[in-house]
Amino acid sequence: MFTERLWLSVEDIWESYLDHPFVKGLGDGSLEVDKFQHWLKQDYVYLVEYARLMAIGAEKSPNLETMNLFTNILHGTLFGEMELHRAFSKRFGISEETLLETEASYENTAYTSYMLNHAQRGDAAVVAACLLTCAWSYNYIGKHLKANYNHDNNPYKEWVDMYSDEEFTELNDMAIKLMNDLAEGKPERELKVLEEIVVTTSKYEYMFWDMCENKSDWKKVIDL
Amino acid sequence: MFTERLWLSVEDIWESYLDHPFVKGLGDGSLEVDKFQHWLKQDYVYLVEYARLMAIGAEKSPNLETMNLFTNILHGTLFGEMELHRAFSKRFGISEETLLETEASYENTAYTSYMLNHAQRGDAAVVAACLLTCAWSYNYIGKHLKANYNHDNNPYKEWVDMYSDEEFTELNDMAIKLMNDLAEGKPERELKVLEEIVVTTSKYEYMFWDMCENKSDWKKVIDL
Amino acid sequence: MFTERLWLSVEDIWESYLDHPFVKGLGDGSLEVDKFQHWLKQDYVYLVEYARLMAIGAEKSPNLETMNLFTNILHGTLFGEMELHRAFSKRFGISEETLLETEASYENTAYTSYMLNHAQRGDAAVVAACLLTCAWSYNYIGKHLKANYNHDNNPYKEWVDMYSDEEFTELNDMAIKLMNDLAEGKPERELKVLEEIVVTTSKYEYMFWDMCENKSDWKKVIDL
Amino acid sequence: MFTERLWLSVEDIWESYLDHPFVKGLGDGSLEVDKFQHWLKQDYVYLVEYARLMAIGAEKSPNLETMNLFTNILHGTLFGEMELHRAFSKRFGISEETLLETEASYENTAYTSYMLNHAQRGDAAVVAACLLTCAWSYNYIGKHLKANYNHDNNPYKEWVDMYSDEEFTELNDMAIKLMNDLAEGKPERELKVLEEIVVTTSKYEYMFWDMCENKSDWKKVIDL
Repeated sequence: MFTERLWLSVEDIWESYLDHPFVKGLGDGSLEVDKFQHWLKQDYVYLVEYARLMAIGAEKSPNLETMNLFTNILHGTLFGEMELHRAFSKRFGISEETLLETEASYENTAYTSYMLNHAQRGDAAVVAACLLTCAWSYNYIGKHLKANYNHDNNPYKEWVDMYSDEEFTELNDMAIKLMNDLAEGKPERELKVLEEIVVTTSKYEYMFWDMCENKSDWKKVIDL
Repeated sequence: MFTERLWLSVEDIWESYLDHPFVKGLGDGSLEVDKFQHWLKQDYVYLVEYARLMAIGAEKSPNLETMNLFTNILHGTLFGEMELHRAFSKRFGISEETLLETEASYENTAYTSYMLNHAQRGDAAVVAACLLTCAWSYNYIGKHLKANYNHDNNPYKEWVDMYSDEEFTELNDMAIKLMNDLAEGKPERELKVLEEIVVTTSKYEYMFWDMCENKSDWKKVIDL
Repeated sequence: MFTERLWLSVEDIWESYLDHPFVKGLGDGSLEVDKFQHWLKQDYVYLVEYARLMAIGAEKSPNLETMNLFTNILHGTLFGEMELHRAFSKRFGISEETLLETEASYENTAYTSYMLNHAQRGDAAVVAACLLTCAWSYNYIGKHLKANYNHDNNPYKEWVDMYSDEEFTELNDMAIKLMNDLAEGKPERELKVLEEIVVTTSKYEYMFWDMCENKSDWKKVIDL
Repeated sequence: MFTERLWLSVEDIWESYLDHPFVKGLGDGSLEVDKFQHWLKQDYVYLVEYARLMAIGAEKSPNLETMNLFTNILHGTLFGEMELHRAFSKRFGISEETLLETEASYENTAYTSYMLNHAQRGDAAVVAACLLTCAWSYNYIGKHLKANYNHDNNPYKEWVDMYSDEEFTELNDMAIKLMNDLAEGKPERELKVLEEIVVTTSKYEYMFWDMCENKSDWKKVIDL
């Protein structure tokens, strides 16, 4: 399966997530609240753009079954994951208005622009490749944190639960299945492009953690 | 409101639907079953392409509220309207397999290609214009048939109920609101394009009824 | 090569062009002028949409070489073929204004909408498949007419020369090469889609000749 | 005119270009060759993506006149500016192969992804907004350097000449005209989006100069 090949390409990058201070702070509960709040805001505006990806996938689906799948992921993101996000944010003192008014940081914009550029220009397999890293790596991190830390007094226990639970794992399995189905039989020159997308989005994921750790925004990158 | 202007442009075309033998046959129950079966099959494959439109709308939404709206219509179409369609078809002796294997007729292809071409190239207002006629005119027809015919022994009573009921009316009201919101303040040269799309899709709707009345397929139009 | 497979799928349809009264009338010079004028006008607005296809191809090119190729065809169409078209039309009494104001007929709209819908949604191979039939079949017809008719007193001699000459043959060879390069190694499910596009556009080509023979417009198809 | 409003929004950012060490080094000839070589390579792969923008513009043109304009800019970029670029690079010891194999840097990718994402999703006015900053600001810088420095012994004299000469000024005037024509009469909510695109691309331009000054690549930003 194509995702086995992909795994070999991204394994090292994904390992580095587990050592990242932000991710470790989620695991052992030591993460400063203001950094987590930064993640909550940036991830919310990220999800709006990520949802566009799924809509593009639905539009470009080669058949009704695939369209139903992409639409389920889209609907689940907008009315499931984002609803949880709003509830979560409220408990951390961030209103829905603040979430909506958040300006995507430089790194956030770089990441979503990259995915949306490729997804709009490519076929459904390209869309699946763009979607894959975020879903898969969050599930990977969630399961790692779940298995390796004690969460009794962890304020981020719910975060760990959410991204490691069965529901999110199933959603991720769907994304993996989509990738394998759509890549099947593709010529090497196209597989290489798909692989490059997954490797590049894996780097963007690392930078997203860094961006949250540093509470970075556009002003921090360029103050003009 | 922009849809008031649109109404003036399409009123005469829509009036003609009410006199069309297929539509009258739905109203008084006299429609031959094989013609209705033709509609069931052609409308099913139409809905797959129509759903792509909504996905494009979600992708191109200028804000999260609009994205939620388009996604709700998309999800409702794939898992509500199409589910009803499958149940309906079963009662008229058409299996899901037959629905899926149906080849879109020439007129059907002309109609969906026209909408998808414009929707992909245009902005969200163009997508809303492409969507509008089908939803709005079915509601218009449904309400007319509901009010003007006795449906006690009408085998198509459920059809009339479905397209005149509150749920479908609400969906149509959403489509009308979307059109007005997205067209607001647009310059005349863009409004003209939106209007032309609504007028042209209104003609395609008439041809769709004709196509079902004649049980037309590609072979009937060109036998090569 | 993939185009050899395609040829087997369209051969019979293309043979039928050679027997079409419009095409034969071009060959022996017997075509009524008003039918040819209809072609001049409809083909001009067709070319505007056909040029969009090439622009989509340039946008979606997997590399600079392909982008240069699509751009050359685009530039050549807009500033070469369409310039010839304007000069040709002038000699047949049709001004540039009349060309620009022409409303695409129903069949013309069906054809270009079909191609643009698929091209926007697909990858560069899909764009090449959409482009192929028109270029290739005009070259096929042009060469057939050149070889099989005496054009000494044929008012359409220039038409036959244009579509059979070396320059147009080279442009067509480019389109064929593009198709083969972009289809190479694709899985069967994708090749089938490409093949279906080429077969369907071949049917649209026949209908385009018919439309010109009948001087058809929207009013002739639906008078609403 | 809309571009007068845009000027007020970007004036300060553009002023900062003139003080940037890379730009000043081009003006007085003091720029280190390896930094200029970095620009040559990065700008070459930038132009490939920038050309995609123009192709999208041609595809989305509301009329033939606009399509001709976008196509002329596209053709001029691929066969004029990029040819000059290749000749220029050769004199600075960079082969065409090296240009083609260059990996776009992180900042370069962020910039082109941003433009292509918006251009694919938006209408022709959005495409014009994406295109504008690069063309306009290079002309602005070129004219400033031409007027304020003595270029007798400047190894970058040709660079300054190219971006300040009449031909490039005309191309830029076309881009400005396109922006004004396509924005005319648009509602404020759409003008705001166009303005934000021009402001953001202006920031990306600054970062591009910075990236060249620092000879930055992906490895410098994230070494995974």
